[in-house]
Amino acid sequence: MSLARVHNFSISLDGFGTGEGQSKDLHFGHAGDRLHQWLFATRWWQQTGGTNGVDDAFAHEHTSSIGAEIMGAGKFGHPGWHEDPDWKGAWGPNPPFHTPVFVLTHQSRPSIEMEGGTTFHFIDASPAEALETARAAAGGRDVRIGGGPTVIRDFLAAGLIDHLHTVVVPILLGRGIRLWDGLEGIEQNYAIESVSSPSGVIHVTFTRTGA
Amino acid sequence: MSLARVHNFSISLDGFGTGEGQSKDLHFGHAGDRLHQWLFATRWWQQTGGTNGVDDAFAHEHTSSIGAEIMGAGKFGHPGWHEDPDWKGAWGPNPPFHTPVFVLTHQSRPSIEMEGGTTFHFIDASPAEALETARAAAGGRDVRIGGGPTVIRDFLAAGLIDHLHTVVVPILLGRGIRLWDGLEGIEQNYAIESVSSPSGVIHVTFTRTGA
Repeated sequence: MSLARVHNFSISLDGFGTGEGQSKDLHFGHAGDRLHQWLFATRWWQQTGGTNGVDDAFAHEHTSSIGAEIMGAGKFGHPGWHEDPDWKGAWGPNPPFHTPVFVLTHQSRPSIEMEGGTTFHFIDASPAEALETARAAAGGRDVRIGGGPTVIRDFLAAGLIDHLHTVVVPILLGRGIRLWDGLEGIEQNYAIESVSSPSGVIHVTFTRTGA
Repeated sequence: MSLARVHNFSISLDGFGTGEGQSKDLHFGHAGDRLHQWLFATRWWQQTGGTNGVDDAFAHEHTSSIGAEIMGAGKFGHPGWHEDPDWKGAWGPNPPFHTPVFVLTHQSRPSIEMEGGTTFHFIDASPAEALETARAAAGGRDVRIGGGPTVIRDFLAAGLIDHLHTVVVPILLGRGIRLWDGLEGIEQNYAIESVSSPSGVIHVTFTRTGA
């Protein structure tokens, strides 16, 4: 069974997965890198050095048994990237995905093959259709739902997420895009666990139960 | 120094401190008692029996060194209590406060002396004025800011809260009154700690720092 999984998705204490005012220089808007400092401190991120505790353990799940990613247009690029025919994402020539990546967008373009095994495909599809497409490309492995918040929310609302790992960062952004809007009662379909890290963040995991 | 403290204030994972549709029978609206089941399970609540762990330890802080409470009109009664001259709160003849309680309301009425040391006073005041009044009545002890969410938010926004203890309950209410709206950046004035409880809730404490 190929699962649909979300990993290391950081939100502020007031529930924002990205800040306001996203631009080419501010991928997360006024949030800056404050939602991801816990991740940058891990051994998984730094490769040499870095912390080796609970944050790092969760971080490693990001790539484990993943065969494809689905991401939203807002993760692939800042507002306006559609007008730039040379835009290839914000990750440089060798993006950290190393699998097919399906970018949800209403404005399609030819696929882009990058170094290191990442290929960006651009599809205009519902969450269920996109997941079917990504699963077919994942070679039996799982599909990561990579964000942003709107995409994860849409997949949750459609009942498509098997594992969800969010990281609550103790800051109040006040504005931006919320993760949890319109998801009343979804906890009934999941077993939820949380663990607070010495770094200050709280890992919250949702594991889909029988229903 | 008499501190202004918030204790055991439960919110859903999506940040709601109370649900939608509050009424005489549904004090927390569609949230029912789901935000407070962790509290009802404690020894502090049950007095005989009950759990004795981290939830209970936090619960005990509710009454420790408190000399007065400030609460909002929405905590004192369901919508419409102003029209009922006999309304004395939802806690019966011996309310669990045992101190003066200042109810913030634009529609004043005479004070009500209850059994067990609780007296309800009705005042139309700003957060700062209300705190000054409550401190004068607290006999050198601290003042509990008792909620609901709008009142706590107003006191936080005014920079008046010294200690804040919130309890994140892993449910998604989807609608109701949010605690965190309009509080961007307040974490800068606090040291924040969190601990997840085996019961499933997460205790998050804010302690005001020098600034």
